[in-house]
Amino acid sequence: MRINRYLAGMNKAYLFAEIANKVADYVKEQPPREIIRLGIGDVTRPLTPHVAQAFADSALKMGTPEGFHGYPPYEGYDFLLDAIIKNEYAPLGVTLGRDEIFVSDGAKSDTGNIQELLSADAKIAVTDPVYPVYVDSNAMVGRLGGKTEGGYERLTTLPCTAENGFMPALPENAPDAVYLCSPNNPTGTAFTYAQLKTIVDWAKAHGTLIIYDSAYKAYITEKDVPHSIFEIEGARDCAVECCSFSKNAGFTGVRCAYTVIPRELSAELDGRLVRLNDLWRRRSESRSNGVSFPVQCAAAASLDEIGRRETQGLVNGYLANARVIREGLTKAGIACYGGVNSPYVWLKTPGKLSSWEFFDALLRRAQVVGTPGAGFGAAGEGYFRLTAFNSPEKTAEAVERIVKAF
Amino acid sequence: MRINRYLAGMNKAYLFAEIANKVADYVKEQPPREIIRLGIGDVTRPLTPHVAQAFADSALKMGTPEGFHGYPPYEGYDFLLDAIIKNEYAPLGVTLGRDEIFVSDGAKSDTGNIQELLSADAKIAVTDPVYPVYVDSNAMVGRLGGKTEGGYERLTTLPCTAENGFMPALPENAPDAVYLCSPNNPTGTAFTYAQLKTIVDWAKAHGTLIIYDSAYKAYITEKDVPHSIFEIEGARDCAVECCSFSKNAGFTGVRCAYTVIPRELSAELDGRLVRLNDLWRRRSESRSNGVSFPVQCAAAASLDEIGRRETQGLVNGYLANARVIREGLTKAGIACYGGVNSPYVWLKTPGKLSSWEFFDALLRRAQVVGTPGAGFGAAGEGYFRLTAFNSPEKTAEAVERIVKAF
Repeated sequence: MRINRYLAGMNKAYLFAEIANKVADYVKEQPPREIIRLGIGDVTRPLTPHVAQAFADSALKMGTPEGFHGYPPYEGYDFLLDAIIKNEYAPLGVTLGRDEIFVSDGAKSDTGNIQELLSADAKIAVTDPVYPVYVDSNAMVGRLGGKTEGGYERLTTLPCTAENGFMPALPENAPDAVYLCSPNNPTGTAFTYAQLKTIVDWAKAHGTLIIYDSAYKAYITEKDVPHSIFEIEGARDCAVECCSFSKNAGFTGVRCAYTVIPRELSAELDGRLVRLNDLWRRRSESRSNGVSFPVQCAAAASLDEIGRRETQGLVNGYLANARVIREGLTKAGIACYGGVNSPYVWLKTPGKLSSWEFFDALLRRAQVVGTPGAGFGAAGEGYFRLTAFNSPEKTAEAVERIVKAF
Repeated sequence: MRINRYLAGMNKAYLFAEIANKVADYVKEQPPREIIRLGIGDVTRPLTPHVAQAFADSALKMGTPEGFHGYPPYEGYDFLLDAIIKNEYAPLGVTLGRDEIFVSDGAKSDTGNIQELLSADAKIAVTDPVYPVYVDSNAMVGRLGGKTEGGYERLTTLPCTAENGFMPALPENAPDAVYLCSPNNPTGTAFTYAQLKTIVDWAKAHGTLIIYDSAYKAYITEKDVPHSIFEIEGARDCAVECCSFSKNAGFTGVRCAYTVIPRELSAELDGRLVRLNDLWRRRSESRSNGVSFPVQCAAAASLDEIGRRETQGLVNGYLANARVIREGLTKAGIACYGGVNSPYVWLKTPGKLSSWEFFDALLRRAQVVGTPGAGFGAAGEGYFRLTAFNSPEKTAEAVERIVKAF
């Protein structure tokens, strides 16, 4: 059989799997104290009472003749679509139809699968550093061509560093699609209305598709940062938006997300206009059977009045951790970015250590796990990501340990 | 932006979505009596008490600090992998390692995604009739080339009809991969040990990958029908097996499945051997975050002693329906296949009606919904699929109505 040489040529492990392996090796050496994990972006607090109850109640219902639900609708139950429209978009002044929202098992799945809408030779751009899924999903189907030193033949990377204020320069030679994440994973920085308007205008002028990942929108605290790209005029003609319940409602272990594809968004093919909403619907119906009733009930519960109050508590707790990290490290002379509209703090590695050297040093000197910036792309070299998803106590202790060790 | 012309060129709706639309249109005409649905293969009985309780209990646990689970392991929790090994394979004399099993949200996802292991120019074969996902997933990434009348330029179809006893002729000019489903969707027939041995020997001799869908294995009642392809000598070198909790434990609305990829299974690429298990692991880790803890608890509960007894009751109930359909229609002079090792009965359309003509006639004369054989491929023309997943009462009534109407 002829196999996929692009998939076979990937670096062996997905970034976070590689880090898990490195930490497991270190644990075998019996470290002097407990390891504190500020690495993978996994939440640690339980589902809120209201959400857990809705999840459990609807799971029990599945055991009754009246309450049983078989195959879910491909694109999501109306009750969840309506809750998203009413609670996530209407307050922003954004009007959406049910048929513009597609519920799925994760923003990772959606941002990984969305490339199937594009032609095999479509030109892709990503910011650098970048969430690895955008690159890996395109690389493994061969769209990026062969590997080069630190990249791919056919991938455009747009560096985002402290020097340019984490706002990418927009190339005149525009790609077919660009992946953007705001608030950003890994840098924790977020686009302002003005910055995002500049990007939308550029995308519209060049016929570029924006794949906008707003999985962290619940963490936005500043007024000049949009919660949705659809708050920007013209975005319905050039953007899709991927959202998730993972980081606001603590759903990393529940698996629910959604992607918005406006009806207007279309592309010319052989002289006719094709709507991306139709393409994605066709793909979804053939490739998945949707998300279970209990999971969608839990997601909807996180959006009602009680649910929103409770999950805001979760988010505020993680944001408080982010502040502790940012302020503690800044005071110790380490340059920090993000952490204001995001659960991620992006720091300059001290002592000119490379990001993987700092990873090792941090693990061995402080028994703290983080994520090396270079794992997110070449422009992440010299940076390091810490997450705010641990407990307040462990977060404070981790900061103390880091400050002492560096 | 340049979009995917293969996806854009698909027929507009996925088969079962198209049928749902047709039925919805008919309902608007106010049919004379309730419509009985024997169309889509969706179960109708609730989760068993033991399984629903495990699901609900673990959902509630997600709301407690001790019981919360974040991102699941990419390939499944050990407790579920072990339950699969012990209950699904050990009794067959098949030994598997945890690292050979990959838990997912559905056999539809797995059979749709598995093509990513293959090169863009790999030659694909499917039986005809066929579960549309195998074809659609390859077609929409462009592997099958352009459409032809009733097929694709680069797709090999292996007709399975009453004439050849539903055993495909195996081509000398072998494909890179062949999709097989046994017990079969849609024909309801199943390969015997001897037939499957012939296929495995052929695949090994030609370096062909067998993608073996055994989602319906729980329905096997005859002794000479294998429950797993790994009961056949040599299969570990040429086959992957996709299984599901949907049809045995009633999980269509819960979403849990698994795929087995043996360690031995490998292919040569540029002079080195590449293990498909490694490729699938790499893909899974980059493209999904696995299946939730509560869903995996529910799946494991369906495999323990109480769970197996209860879910066997579900299966037996559906098998009894299949017998009612088969015997009732046979007695009325309609030729029927399947339904012995399967919840599907595959019938010859009476009066030489085409399968879509019979669909319309059945809907309008008997108010019964089924699935036209032609929807599953050219060789399905003149056949029709009925499912045993409705209640005993409605199933019996549907048979009565059909016998009266034709």
